[in-house]
Amino acid sequence: MNCVIISIGDELLSGRTVDTNSAWLSSQLYRLGIEVTERLTLPDNEARITEGIATAFQRANLVILTGGLGPTDDDRTRRAIADYLGVELETDPNILKTIRRKFSERNSEMPETAEREALVPTGAKPLNNSVGIAPGLYLKIGDDKHLVALPGVPKELKAIFENELSRTLKGAAGNEGRNRVVESFFTTGIPESILAKKIYDNLGKTHPKNLAFYPSSLGVEVRLTINPKSADDKHILSIIEQTAEPWCYSQEENSLPKIVGELLLEKGATLAIAESCTGGLLASRIVDISGASDWFAGGVVSYSNRAKAEILHVSTEALEKYGAVSPQVAAQMAEGAAEVFHADYALSTTGIAGPTGGTPEKPTGLVFYALHTPNGNLIRKNRFTAGREDHRLRTSQATLAMLWLYMMGKYQKHHWADGSEGC
Amino acid sequence: MNCVIISIGDELLSGRTVDTNSAWLSSQLYRLGIEVTERLTLPDNEARITEGIATAFQRANLVILTGGLGPTDDDRTRRAIADYLGVELETDPNILKTIRRKFSERNSEMPETAEREALVPTGAKPLNNSVGIAPGLYLKIGDDKHLVALPGVPKELKAIFENELSRTLKGAAGNEGRNRVVESFFTTGIPESILAKKIYDNLGKTHPKNLAFYPSSLGVEVRLTINPKSADDKHILSIIEQTAEPWCYSQEENSLPKIVGELLLEKGATLAIAESCTGGLLASRIVDISGASDWFAGGVVSYSNRAKAEILHVSTEALEKYGAVSPQVAAQMAEGAAEVFHADYALSTTGIAGPTGGTPEKPTGLVFYALHTPNGNLIRKNRFTAGREDHRLRTSQATLAMLWLYMMGKYQKHHWADGSEGC
Repeated sequence: MNCVIISIGDELLSGRTVDTNSAWLSSQLYRLGIEVTERLTLPDNEARITEGIATAFQRANLVILTGGLGPTDDDRTRRAIADYLGVELETDPNILKTIRRKFSERNSEMPETAEREALVPTGAKPLNNSVGIAPGLYLKIGDDKHLVALPGVPKELKAIFENELSRTLKGAAGNEGRNRVVESFFTTGIPESILAKKIYDNLGKTHPKNLAFYPSSLGVEVRLTINPKSADDKHILSIIEQTAEPWCYSQEENSLPKIVGELLLEKGATLAIAESCTGGLLASRIVDISGASDWFAGGVVSYSNRAKAEILHVSTEALEKYGAVSPQVAAQMAEGAAEVFHADYALSTTGIAGPTGGTPEKPTGLVFYALHTPNGNLIRKNRFTAGREDHRLRTSQATLAMLWLYMMGKYQKHHWADGSEGC
Repeated sequence: MNCVIISIGDELLSGRTVDTNSAWLSSQLYRLGIEVTERLTLPDNEARITEGIATAFQRANLVILTGGLGPTDDDRTRRAIADYLGVELETDPNILKTIRRKFSERNSEMPETAEREALVPTGAKPLNNSVGIAPGLYLKIGDDKHLVALPGVPKELKAIFENELSRTLKGAAGNEGRNRVVESFFTTGIPESILAKKIYDNLGKTHPKNLAFYPSSLGVEVRLTINPKSADDKHILSIIEQTAEPWCYSQEENSLPKIVGELLLEKGATLAIAESCTGGLLASRIVDISGASDWFAGGVVSYSNRAKAEILHVSTEALEKYGAVSPQVAAQMAEGAAEVFHADYALSTTGIAGPTGGTPEKPTGLVFYALHTPNGNLIRKNRFTAGREDHRLRTSQATLAMLWLYMMGKYQKHHWADGSEGC
């Protein structure tokens, strides 16, 4: 089954809003066996939308419209669908009742314009919007054409898709979806090129078409689409699984802080952190995880030497002799964080994120990170040179990976592929 | 002048990559007086791209292609352009020389495939790519059609646009661009609806077409496009400027941490922070600013009561009597941060970000934030209910806004419009 997505809104064309809905929808559809073959972004203009729907159905049997379902004058999607179908817009009394109820639950008065959100083209089925006002719309046209309209607000679009639409489309996509399962391996600490070479070497002459590598500052996601009934596909999957194993922290969850948190929770252990160059990013990524307070004891952002000495009890001797960016100071920062927060484990970062501050001996990008454990300290050195933001992201991930490897009992035998050195 | 952008790449349609180029290009083009009327996303398929170019020129006289200019087999843009024009691809010796030089400067061997990046459709002018290998391409077709091809890598696309293409297009767009200036007002602490109502009330009967409001968790950007030669436009601009003034922290810079940093630097003052619910986000936003070490003394992420007491010297009496989420504790956290980091000013946050942890007396979303100054403490209370991430962003921004208002001498007389209360 093929799909064309039509994103609607002047704010997309003016560049005010980045269209993240389309990419999200595409990945979801892919998992159902539906391929997006084209995308179109159109202004809030009825005639252009009507024309766009007609063109899209020449290329695909599923057309999904996003945006333009709100209550204001510039929301033209309903009218454009009605025009395309040659039907009327009529008020659906059930939708109207639901909208009234939502406003009364919020204790706010329902504006008259909100009634427009109960208008539907004849024959359209509403898709319940659990987080907003306007429902989505679904229409089956003839035997095998499907038209869907979703609100442009990302959280509303996601809720409608997950709660109801994905089931409807799965049924429509039929066997294509059932014979397709997407397997992901979230890895960190190995560059895409090295990981890809290892996997292709182990696969020998097989070159699976549906194997893809998605690199980011946090690691590489390896994604393979298989037919779960195919023995060949399962064999390929097991080779990839074995090859990626040393660096793969999850097959489900693209969040190393969450994985590390679960490991700490299992052991009833707590974590503290001391950040210099990452400057709060590591803490922020941890606190992103709901429930982090069960295992995260706290953190210090110690930018200055004085703060390192006074708050984290780093020795002035180490600061003077080795400098703030050194393995000795990294270790003492982690020790100090564990001490002041009474935590079992602690992580620290100290480095030169740039763009200024580098010297010939300690160039921009240099970073030391340490893990304090009840059994002693582990320290590593690396260099990340792709800019300030990237430096902070990569450092935070490398630091979490250290703890993950340690908690998994994999640290000592780990095959390091990230260019780092133990200190 | 109108433009259609065609984004090319299977990775865009599969949802692997979010197309951020299109939004960026649209805003840049708008400033030149060029309006993007439609966007198209196509697969790495020559025939579809050729067809897409033809359709696009029916709607606009400028067509910009992004992506598909790389050295590999699935980069089809050059060939598609040549097919559309009915011309050949030929190797441009100057481009080839430049490519060879780039590889030799990087001390890396030039792969044979890189030669493909010197292939251009007859008549195309290369656009120098200062940060990557493949140049962009520009073609004038007939009297008033313009075709541009840019690499899909965002930093390469931006470099080519800024270094060379914007000038070429400015010339092509002519007077439309010269008569258009975009003025922005970055505000925080006032909802879009209230700010818009104030502005429209003050404008009276005038309803400027080119006035737009862009809300986010950090505030509202008010954007007005004016003709700098028009007295009417200047009058409208001055009304908006006066109306937005209490909440407008900058007309140039969409970064409140940067604005606050500049104010601190001017006074030679330093800032420390103590974060509970924002959990490192505030520190992280500050450290994002290059040079922040000149005014940022450091921060503590004190999730637990014990850390608040031991590290920040919050009294156990206040913690027991009022609870961690209270104005008293917020104030003591800020005081403690200023003390331990020896800073002139300090900010603190304590609240219930959710989704769990709320009670009837202290519901999810409740937050207290405080500013410690050499002249005493200021404390505010608010409630942000839109989810964990949003809560942290809004809290960090409201906290920075407190300091900004104070440093500007505007705090005492400020017209609060964010629903917050002084404590």
